[in-house]
Amino acid sequence: MSLIVKKFGGSSVANAERVFNVANRIVEDYKKGNDIIVVVSAQGDTTDDLIAKAKEINPKNASKREMDMLLSAGEQISIALLAMAIEKLGYPVVSLLGWQAGFSTDSNHGIARIKAVNSERIKNEIEKHKIVVIAGFQGLNKYDDITTLGRGGSDTSAVALAAAMKADLCQIYTDVDGVYSADPRKIPTAVKMNEISYDEMLELATLGAQVLNNRSVEMAKKYNVELEVLSSLEVKPGTIVKEKVKMEKTLIRGAAKDNNVACISIIGLEDTPGIAFKIFNKIAQYKVNVDIILQSVGRDNTKDITFTVSQDQSDAAIEAINSLKESLNYKDLSIDTSVSKVSIVGAGMESNPGVASKMFEALSDAGINIRMISTSEIKISVLIDEKYADKAVEVVHDKFIG
Amino acid sequence: MSLIVKKFGGSSVANAERVFNVANRIVEDYKKGNDIIVVVSAQGDTTDDLIAKAKEINPKNASKREMDMLLSAGEQISIALLAMAIEKLGYPVVSLLGWQAGFSTDSNHGIARIKAVNSERIKNEIEKHKIVVIAGFQGLNKYDDITTLGRGGSDTSAVALAAAMKADLCQIYTDVDGVYSADPRKIPTAVKMNEISYDEMLELATLGAQVLNNRSVEMAKKYNVELEVLSSLEVKPGTIVKEKVKMEKTLIRGAAKDNNVACISIIGLEDTPGIAFKIFNKIAQYKVNVDIILQSVGRDNTKDITFTVSQDQSDAAIEAINSLKESLNYKDLSIDTSVSKVSIVGAGMESNPGVASKMFEALSDAGINIRMISTSEIKISVLIDEKYADKAVEVVHDKFIG
Repeated sequence: MSLIVKKFGGSSVANAERVFNVANRIVEDYKKGNDIIVVVSAQGDTTDDLIAKAKEINPKNASKREMDMLLSAGEQISIALLAMAIEKLGYPVVSLLGWQAGFSTDSNHGIARIKAVNSERIKNEIEKHKIVVIAGFQGLNKYDDITTLGRGGSDTSAVALAAAMKADLCQIYTDVDGVYSADPRKIPTAVKMNEISYDEMLELATLGAQVLNNRSVEMAKKYNVELEVLSSLEVKPGTIVKEKVKMEKTLIRGAAKDNNVACISIIGLEDTPGIAFKIFNKIAQYKVNVDIILQSVGRDNTKDITFTVSQDQSDAAIEAINSLKESLNYKDLSIDTSVSKVSIVGAGMESNPGVASKMFEALSDAGINIRMISTSEIKISVLIDEKYADKAVEVVHDKFIG
Repeated sequence: MSLIVKKFGGSSVANAERVFNVANRIVEDYKKGNDIIVVVSAQGDTTDDLIAKAKEINPKNASKREMDMLLSAGEQISIALLAMAIEKLGYPVVSLLGWQAGFSTDSNHGIARIKAVNSERIKNEIEKHKIVVIAGFQGLNKYDDITTLGRGGSDTSAVALAAAMKADLCQIYTDVDGVYSADPRKIPTAVKMNEISYDEMLELATLGAQVLNNRSVEMAKKYNVELEVLSSLEVKPGTIVKEKVKMEKTLIRGAAKDNNVACISIIGLEDTPGIAFKIFNKIAQYKVNVDIILQSVGRDNTKDITFTVSQDQSDAAIEAINSLKESLNYKDLSIDTSVSKVSIVGAGMESNPGVASKMFEALSDAGINIRMISTSEIKISVLIDEKYADKAVEVVHDKFIG
């Protein structure tokens, strides 16, 4: 008998038929004698519908506190409906809102972080042998105001609960049946992994594999919560995410691309000491995350600095640089969004120095030019023209896995 | 400077335009220096849409606890949107759910009664000069589960708040501009009243005038909360409801009909002592409210008992009588739903014995047959054929007021 936390996303509960599908999956495991906690997102388009309502009232500046009040109604609807479906199947169940389930968060409305889960109420309900259905994505701050955790927040809710309840397993149900070495819709030779480590999963999540929310993987790693990514439609084992995984034959776990990249270049920058610090310190003040940085020496005692940020942060980055106009001498400032970051991830590469050159060889053979390179212990990323991104993933994947 | 509680129903906030209309009404009074608390229902069709979703999952037996979880999301949406509109107009505002506003109720899900309003949070927000927008219709029971107050519950929420906060006035905004002596859409000579007493309003509410929910008027009477019924669309004074009102020229405040009546007859009942007690005691056990009762002597030591109940309780009443089958001897049991109750209400009639006969005269002149009569100190009701109901209201209204 185990305690299992199961998380279902909005598309899994989009209509009555799917709600019953989810209810059946839950009841199956409950009948085996397991204790079950379920975390659910808002139904299908509910969140978008609510955002549209808010935009009708205030197109831009609705306060985040009131947005959280509005959006958290979405999960309230889905937990009630899922609980009703489980009742209809004849099993004991109770639905709980984020605050009823004991989620306390900080006060950053819209992007709140979970500070604690006071799981007393959940434990009481589990002791009464009830299936507990909990609204993901939401909590309560110290002023008793409702907060939301931001996109992907329901994954984080599920992992936080699994940690607080010391659950045996946290299952994240998605529309894919596990984690693949590349996007299986594009790379036919992509293989599903039985296991993957937290670190590898983190690199893949950051790279846009989009199977699991990054914060939830970080939290799972921190509290050592075993995750399983599996299909909400088919009944079969998924991919287990945990600390130590058996080394498999391949060095590389996966290859992925990320098109949400903007490449910003400051050309002909007057070369004075501390100039790079000045720029990136200002950019950090604008809350922009810089990814790859390239610095090169130019002519006449100048240099060029090129760096990448996500496209939605590029305006803020440009603004940050412009705010330095008075004290910064440069010839040209340019931004290029037609780039893509292609990466390979694998804990195995740490002890295998030939991986990078093998990747570059594959790209070179395909005639793809590399503009920037970034490496970590378990990841190699290259920046290339966006139009070659799919091809690049394919040839790199083939080289290592296919 | 006054503290005013304002209540707006679902149709008043049905879309963005109406939400802004309501926001403007609120801001007008706030700008005059008043403290404002607003109670809002769910938008237009939201409640019906949510009920439809529940019926898709479980057509009949969804638990009331989960129904309350589901339905209370409706007001959550409307308070957030109204708060956003007030923000957009540039005024300080905060929205609060029933539980955040301190509404504790008993545990009768779907028809919960308010036990207390812990108004600490509201007082804090008012001290910060915020307009406070509160979800009507909902509260929290002692288990921290969300409850709803049932139909018309938002009126009750508003009055309870006004009582707890010792508000100077509780304004109930509706789609009519006050309380009339009869339905103004049908009786062109109907007059709007400036003032009406709680007792008169209670009789009119019971009679289906449907301007104010009955429980809210009872609560207003109990805590001496001054009410105003007024239009949410036009800016003009409405009708004040309070304890003592100035006697106006007319004896009669209003005339109204109620078609939601079923007339049940037990014919040829064996005349043994205590038989009426036995019947009505059993009916009370089935939680059916009996309105008018008529008992007549029949032939051969039998009698007939005829009584009225609301149509939605008629099945339960019949069931109650059938449960006595073993010990009750009667010839026939019949039910007639093609009846209507027409009533006149007025505190003035108490000291004026001619009112009843004047009413009967008006009906007789119009050729309308009276089947049953019921009187109280401030009301006279007659049961007639439903098809004559509108005509009856018209002739009675004309006789006294028109």
